[in-house]
Amino acid sequence: MKEFDTIAAVATSIGEAGVSIIRVSGDKAREIVDKIFVAKNGKSLMDMKTYTMRYGHIIDENKNLIDEVIVSFMKGPRSFTAEDTVEINCHGGLVVTNSVLKSVFKAGARLAEPGEFTKRAFLNGRIDLSQAEAVIDIINAKTELSAKSALMQSKGKISIEINELRGKLLGVIAHIEATVDYPEDDLEEVTAENGVIELKAVLNEVNRLLESAEEGKIIREGLKTVIVGKPNVGKSSLLNALLMETRAIVTDVPGTTRDVIEEYINIDGIPIQIVDTAGIRETEDIVEKIGVEKSKEKIEEADLVILMLDRSRQLDDEDKEIIEYIKDKKYVVLLNKCDLEGSMNEAELKNLKPESIIRTSAKNSDGLKELKNLIKDMFFKGEVSAEDVYVTNNRHKEALYNAKSNIESAIDTLNMTFAIDLASIDLRSAWTNLGQITGESLQEDIIDKIFAEFCLGK
Amino acid sequence: MKEFDTIAAVATSIGEAGVSIIRVSGDKAREIVDKIFVAKNGKSLMDMKTYTMRYGHIIDENKNLIDEVIVSFMKGPRSFTAEDTVEINCHGGLVVTNSVLKSVFKAGARLAEPGEFTKRAFLNGRIDLSQAEAVIDIINAKTELSAKSALMQSKGKISIEINELRGKLLGVIAHIEATVDYPEDDLEEVTAENGVIELKAVLNEVNRLLESAEEGKIIREGLKTVIVGKPNVGKSSLLNALLMETRAIVTDVPGTTRDVIEEYINIDGIPIQIVDTAGIRETEDIVEKIGVEKSKEKIEEADLVILMLDRSRQLDDEDKEIIEYIKDKKYVVLLNKCDLEGSMNEAELKNLKPESIIRTSAKNSDGLKELKNLIKDMFFKGEVSAEDVYVTNNRHKEALYNAKSNIESAIDTLNMTFAIDLASIDLRSAWTNLGQITGESLQEDIIDKIFAEFCLGK
Repeated sequence: MKEFDTIAAVATSIGEAGVSIIRVSGDKAREIVDKIFVAKNGKSLMDMKTYTMRYGHIIDENKNLIDEVIVSFMKGPRSFTAEDTVEINCHGGLVVTNSVLKSVFKAGARLAEPGEFTKRAFLNGRIDLSQAEAVIDIINAKTELSAKSALMQSKGKISIEINELRGKLLGVIAHIEATVDYPEDDLEEVTAENGVIELKAVLNEVNRLLESAEEGKIIREGLKTVIVGKPNVGKSSLLNALLMETRAIVTDVPGTTRDVIEEYINIDGIPIQIVDTAGIRETEDIVEKIGVEKSKEKIEEADLVILMLDRSRQLDDEDKEIIEYIKDKKYVVLLNKCDLEGSMNEAELKNLKPESIIRTSAKNSDGLKELKNLIKDMFFKGEVSAEDVYVTNNRHKEALYNAKSNIESAIDTLNMTFAIDLASIDLRSAWTNLGQITGESLQEDIIDKIFAEFCLGK
Repeated sequence: MKEFDTIAAVATSIGEAGVSIIRVSGDKAREIVDKIFVAKNGKSLMDMKTYTMRYGHIIDENKNLIDEVIVSFMKGPRSFTAEDTVEINCHGGLVVTNSVLKSVFKAGARLAEPGEFTKRAFLNGRIDLSQAEAVIDIINAKTELSAKSALMQSKGKISIEINELRGKLLGVIAHIEATVDYPEDDLEEVTAENGVIELKAVLNEVNRLLESAEEGKIIREGLKTVIVGKPNVGKSSLLNALLMETRAIVTDVPGTTRDVIEEYINIDGIPIQIVDTAGIRETEDIVEKIGVEKSKEKIEEADLVILMLDRSRQLDDEDKEIIEYIKDKKYVVLLNKCDLEGSMNEAELKNLKPESIIRTSAKNSDGLKELKNLIKDMFFKGEVSAEDVYVTNNRHKEALYNAKSNIESAIDTLNMTFAIDLASIDLRSAWTNLGQITGESLQEDIIDKIFAEFCLGK
């Protein structure tokens, strides 16, 4: 394990809550906290056993009490950072938490940079980079499905697959290089043929992972959705119906900020982010106010367009323009107000896919279930399960994409049967590409950049 | 110890941080968490020792992983609630924290009401009511002085004094009642005389505590201050100069919301709340915009008025009106722009106390120290120290005030020397009054109301 200085930060969210945790990590963690901690039982922290806690007080240099706390100790490598870690559970107020943290600094720790605890877990070899990235995804998860998927990644689910693929690539490389070192014509041909077979299997796996990236991105970041339609067509009713269920799930746990959650509607675990929701909620007059051009802009940004039409009226030119515009996007068309007299000429919808049209009555929530199922079918193949491996991270996707190109190029080279050693260059590149996912073949500055995007105290 | 059901809540602030703590308290705390926890070492929580921790996972009914956690156990009565308490350190995200909490509910705990953990500590006899109230004051503390003062109260500093006074009252009551039971004329007189001496000593203590209440209220809630003055007299410069030091103290600890702190300026630990600060910062034209009448309203609400005058100009009618208006309030007058040519006729300030007038130059921070010292001298007698006992709570003040009346009435009765048993009725009332501070003589519904004002998870 490498040697680092001892760092500290508040690991919980800061606010007027009952409890805050100050995490102190590094070789001197115990020594530092021991200077400012007086245990009720009078004992020093230096003889504290791992995974135990002690009650007492944090004191200042004049022995004045600063706070009543419980201190816990986790000896490295069995801690989050894999270093000796002391956690101080103090009172949760802003001022008192800061007072305790300042005492820890005075006693010799320095403030941890954002992501530095997790970075140490990585640098100390406890987790790889994809696992480290998953920690942040767990914290930022929009739905339980997102959280579980991130948890799986944090347990190394992607790493295992990646390491297997890298192992196979290394096998092929070794064969090629051995053949080149002892050249015999027929052996070279056999090696090329076997190599192509093995590489095609690897390529299949890479493609499978790449295919999961679209679903993975939605699980992690949510599906950007825009609802368009004329004033009074029922957009607000639809949104409220969708939100109502989300609220019902969320608000049974009080203390949560409703705003945070309401940005995401939860459809069987898939986070749906309604673009410009506030706008829609504030006014019914979206199209009227922002005009067709503005609607088109919103549509361009979205992964999914939900177009609401009033089935009790005829289509006008604006409706037709929007229909024409969305037909190459992923869309759902809701024919609303099916409960009313009168009806549009549905022949005018002939350019739209029939399976993407749902008859609804937002007023009494008819068609809501169909809408949800349709969205799931459009973006997910089969059941969505956190047990499956999804590539959720753009960085991983890019690395896989580069690996794919290099493997394809290697296969081409091997198929030519001459100069098979050229293939091994591509395969080494592919091996490096995959190693970027787990962080084994990444430069320090890129690693620093990844961790700098973490939040403070993580 | 009383029997209660098992409750759970998030004890930390909820937000996208590294860690959240879910606290579970009650006889079944271990049993409940054991149902949803799988330890890495495979062991059940039921054989876990107090003040130890265990690493593992929270799982759902299908054995799917919900989160990676560390569980700690504190056996009652050595816990915050004095009950068996299990704390789950899980990931700090909104969704994942809620998932874990919901699992705890499914396993048999119910959501703790606001303040219910602290209420149990009180009902189980670990702390009294004044100590319980101090817990919230620690969390809400505006400055380190407020936090330390609250911490002292949470350690029972007021309770000890109150209990001593109650003991003395009980002694006098016992004497009186014994005398009445075995009536002999001369004994009655002696009892009355001795009683008066003892009661006067108690009364002195009660008065001393009551006198601390004004300072105590400021330490706990801050000093409501309004800065009035004409446009461009330098209010913003003054405010910025005061805030700058506060910021310097606060922002060395990142992750804190600057807004929260900036509501309070910290003068040697005394929290100064500038009323309508935002307004002052947004515009220099306070008087111009809001007029003299509005200024008067603000002045009425304030504990302290800081009036800034431009010493380089003559006073106008508005200035004079404000001077007349504040002269019965607590005020400081700053004669600003002392560095400029020209000067007002200071004879016109004759109605103001000379010791409350300070010459300043806000531009170069002259006079800032004098202002701070003056404020401290105006509101605090001598040095302010967290070691002293301050009555910070209005409820306590009211109880002390009632006790004072009853003791005075008892002294009057005893001085009459006849019907000394009437005095014992007043003294029993005073004894009850004081017991309301520690919660010993409070009705359940009032206690419920006090705890209902606590935050969730505390």
